Amino acid sequence: MSSDISTDRSDPTTGLSPANLAYTPTGRLAGKVALVTGAAGNLGSVIVRHYLREGAVVVLSGRTRSKLEAVRDAALLETGAPPAHADVVVMDGADPVSVRAGMAELQARHGRLDILVNNAGTAGPRQPMEKVPLTREELDALRAAGSADTETLGDAMRNILGLTWNTLRAAAPLLKAGASVINISTIFSRTQYYGRVAYVVPKAALNALSRQWADELGARGVRVNNLLPGPIRSERIRSVFATMDQLKGAQSGATAQDFFEMMTLKRGYDGGEPKKDYPVPPDIAHTCVFLGSDESLAFNGHNFEVTHGMKVLQESRSTWVSRPALRTVDAVGHTVLISAGDQIDDALGIARLHAELGACVILGLPREAWCSEARERLTGQRGRIDVRLFDRTDPATMQAALAVEGDGPITAAVVMPAHGPERFQGSITEAEDDDIEAFIEEELGGAIAIARMLSRYWQERTDLPHEPRYVFVTNASEGAAEGATSSKNAWAYMWRSAMEALIRVWRDESEVDVHLGRRRLPEWGNQIIRYDNTEPENLPF
Amino acid sequence: MSSDISTDRSDPTTGLSPANLAYTPTGRLAGKVALVTGAAGNLGSVIVRHYLREGAVVVLSGRTRSKLEAVRDAALLETGAPPAHADVVVMDGADPVSVRAGMAELQARHGRLDILVNNAGTAGPRQPMEKVPLTREELDALRAAGSADTETLGDAMRNILGLTWNTLRAAAPLLKAGASVINISTIFSRTQYYGRVAYVVPKAALNALSRQWADELGARGVRVNNLLPGPIRSERIRSVFATMDQLKGAQSGATAQDFFEMMTLKRGYDGGEPKKDYPVPPDIAHTCVFLGSDESLAFNGHNFEVTHGMKVLQESRSTWVSRPALRTVDAVGHTVLISAGDQIDDALGIARLHAELGACVILGLPREAWCSEARERLTGQRGRIDVRLFDRTDPATMQAALAVEGDGPITAAVVMPAHGPERFQGSITEAEDDDIEAFIEEELGGAIAIARMLSRYWQERTDLPHEPRYVFVTNASEGAAEGATSSKNAWAYMWRSAMEALIRVWRDESEVDVHLGRRRLPEWGNQIIRYDNTEPENLPF
Repeated sequence: MSSDISTDRSDPTTGLSPANLAYTPTGRLAGKVALVTGAAGNLGSVIVRHYLREGAVVVLSGRTRSKLEAVRDAALLETGAPPAHADVVVMDGADPVSVRAGMAELQARHGRLDILVNNAGTAGPRQPMEKVPLTREELDALRAAGSADTETLGDAMRNILGLTWNTLRAAAPLLKAGASVINISTIFSRTQYYGRVAYVVPKAALNALSRQWADELGARGVRVNNLLPGPIRSERIRSVFATMDQLKGAQSGATAQDFFEMMTLKRGYDGGEPKKDYPVPPDIAHTCVFLGSDESLAFNGHNFEVTHGMKVLQESRSTWVSRPALRTVDAVGHTVLISAGDQIDDALGIARLHAELGACVILGLPREAWCSEARERLTGQRGRIDVRLFDRTDPATMQAALAVEGDGPITAAVVMPAHGPERFQGSITEAEDDDIEAFIEEELGGAIAIARMLSRYWQERTDLPHEPRYVFVTNASEGAAEGATSSKNAWAYMWRSAMEALIRVWRDESEVDVHLGRRRLPEWGNQIIRYDNTEPENLPF
Repeated sequence: MSSDISTDRSDPTTGLSPANLAYTPTGRLAGKVALVTGAAGNLGSVIVRHYLREGAVVVLSGRTRSKLEAVRDAALLETGAPPAHADVVVMDGADPVSVRAGMAELQARHGRLDILVNNAGTAGPRQPMEKVPLTREELDALRAAGSADTETLGDAMRNILGLTWNTLRAAAPLLKAGASVINISTIFSRTQYYGRVAYVVPKAALNALSRQWADELGARGVRVNNLLPGPIRSERIRSVFATMDQLKGAQSGATAQDFFEMMTLKRGYDGGEPKKDYPVPPDIAHTCVFLGSDESLAFNGHNFEVTHGMKVLQESRSTWVSRPALRTVDAVGHTVLISAGDQIDDALGIARLHAELGACVILGLPREAWCSEARERLTGQRGRIDVRLFDRTDPATMQAALAVEGDGPITAAVVMPAHGPERFQGSITEAEDDDIEAFIEEELGGAIAIARMLSRYWQERTDLPHEPRYVFVTNASEGAAEGATSSKNAWAYMWRSAMEALIRVWRDESEVDVHLGRRRLPEWGNQIIRYDNTEPENLPF
């Protein structure tokens, strides 16, 4: 597995010269057992070397034994660490059964786990949102047309979010007070990142998961921190950005320049003058050593941004409202699509409001039975509300709902979660395999499938009277009294964080498309967090 | 100097046993020259030992040579570091001339500076807002009545914010690319902290200053990061919290419990079961080692919260608005006080709006000439606007303005900055002594003086028809398009950050007073950030 933050091992800036990696028996991680996932990746292999140097016993995990063994042998050679300090456990993080088997193997051989570095994760398909492959067939078609992509959207979410979730669930029983978990996310979960919706959305969900784990595991003395690398100096990032330049129709180097402009810190390598440049893999490894060691015993739920001080918006800059129904009128237009999940009452409330304000409403519900119920309950309703089957897990129903002859163009959309708050809740550590799968598929995948459908629709319609608008609304009372970095419901918090990343990518891609003449009007969107206000007049202060 | 984050050196949890502090010539800070301010303080002295162990040449600074030399001698003895590795420079951080002299001495003897740990800072007077001493006479009166306080509000701001600012300005020319600055703030700049407005307001301004320095110095390769300690295990914090319990009329241990409840991480010391407990000084020192070493070369403008994962609101949870004049109607009431600075046009605009909405307006301006001008310009104005002299740097004028016979009670207040945006702007590194002094005195001190006056006034009035309200409004266009953690104007950003802390303390103290029967109605306030919207319909996303 490889992600955007891996690097070229032969790069002279990786700090891999044997001299500074010599094994120290009394190192900062002496006596600790560490699991590094994705250890055969280039970033993982740098972390492994730094951990061995600092005296840890390192378990390398990944999908391919031969690759792991090669990394292990090279790392032992370079550091001079005792062979017993490096072990290999094969597991496929996306498969919870495989992860549990691997963790049992680890426990049998080492008896415990002091540090978990959740480094593994793939890069996802590199496609603008409207082309992201949802199915194997779509992926095959893209490949036949020349794409090098190997994953569907679902694959990417399982290989990024699911994998980390599976690993931590299985590792949790082994982690005792004083243990440290380090999740490797990416700063791109908080920036625009053209053509990479399948990468940044699960990473953004991971940020939220990480924060909630800090609560759950912190309560028994295990700390969980999140590491957000910026673009890391490597051949890979140069190629990633070059591809983005092409996709965006931008000058060569434009993407890199955009990210350099966000950086506040210049840096000089190899004795050169300080300039805007990328961090290097040892920057990540050093932070992992600090976080794995007892030096960081007082940190929990913290984000470590290894980015040369990139200025990014803080989490959730979306609209927080006290009168949620009214505020969805942001999506006002001639024809409004309301894509609801299983919360029919809630959906009817929003639909009625729009209709009463003069919009033609298309209310999309995912089951025929619910459509019938809704039609019945809308008898006598003022204004026009047209109830249609619109199932986010079945693109054909969405296509059909949007292709009704004689409709004026839809210019606004309100997207609600697939399920009410009772469907996904409770401990994320104790979460069941099936629930994780359903959450990924229905809540994250479903929202992206709707976004893809709408973006295609708006790209194709030539008769839009104004810029299309969309809002993603949370379930009622989702906003937390405690502030932006937590929620009463960890699952809802993940969704909110993921939708924020989705909207950011969507808006950026849409603007680029307009710039290139690929679409006529930019699509504008926002997220609405609904909450119970605890103060008479305002948000918490 | 001593602040809340210092500790008892004899505490067994400080990790000061000689064994783990033995000097390592090849340590993580080998070859670096570090300045630790407030080095004779208990936290400073722990940082000094860890720095010596890691091979740094450490310059200890503070006001009292004998104390610094005692710490130096003890630290050399405990670590076994070469005597040439510990030097003493006497300076009083609150006095820019003294700081420049000290820095010249450092340069003469060491030639350069690689790490600056801005650790010095005092605790400020421990008084609820309405009793905070503004003058020496007021302080003397408090002391005569039994208080142990030694500082006025101005002293505290100079000894916390001014000191750090002076040190960094003087050190800046010595800091070359690759150098690291570590500012020690406090997590209490983001929480309620009863009776400590004089401590948290300048610390909150320091947070903003820190972020802006990251921009200014980062541009030439020097990184600046901010460290926010939580309550640190010590005799001192136990005494601070015990005093707060008393002041708040709360059960013994209630304050500690409030802060434990914010922590997400339990921790076990000395082999004990994990429980909610305080971090210890070595947690801070370890973070300072990491930030001083080349391991942190990719961090800039980052906040490191050493708090056992305390959940605090993110910065600036105040209201952001696109139609600022309207929004000040949050302060609607029978009689509204508008306390303006030198922006007469702006003040008249807000005053007119309130008057037109039916309020009696008292418009306070700080100069007689401006009052005359305003009266002239208000000729023929609909509604009642009474212009009075109201100078925040002269409490007597404020008292007189509020004591006019026959007025109904003021129930709302709008507080504007003392100066328009052109008065304080530009590089904070190149800032002049006089400007810093004026900013501290007029913008920070002035705002607190108004708050103190209003809080006293509202406490005394027995005829308030409803809960009093206040808003602090920034100058127009102050809000940054880039998000909450930056501003177009570093000085305005400091003010905004400081006012947020002021409001948080004010609200908390007011609620406690009501609870204890010390005042009848709680005072409710907020901050309004005015900005230029860059999007047609919303905040940046």
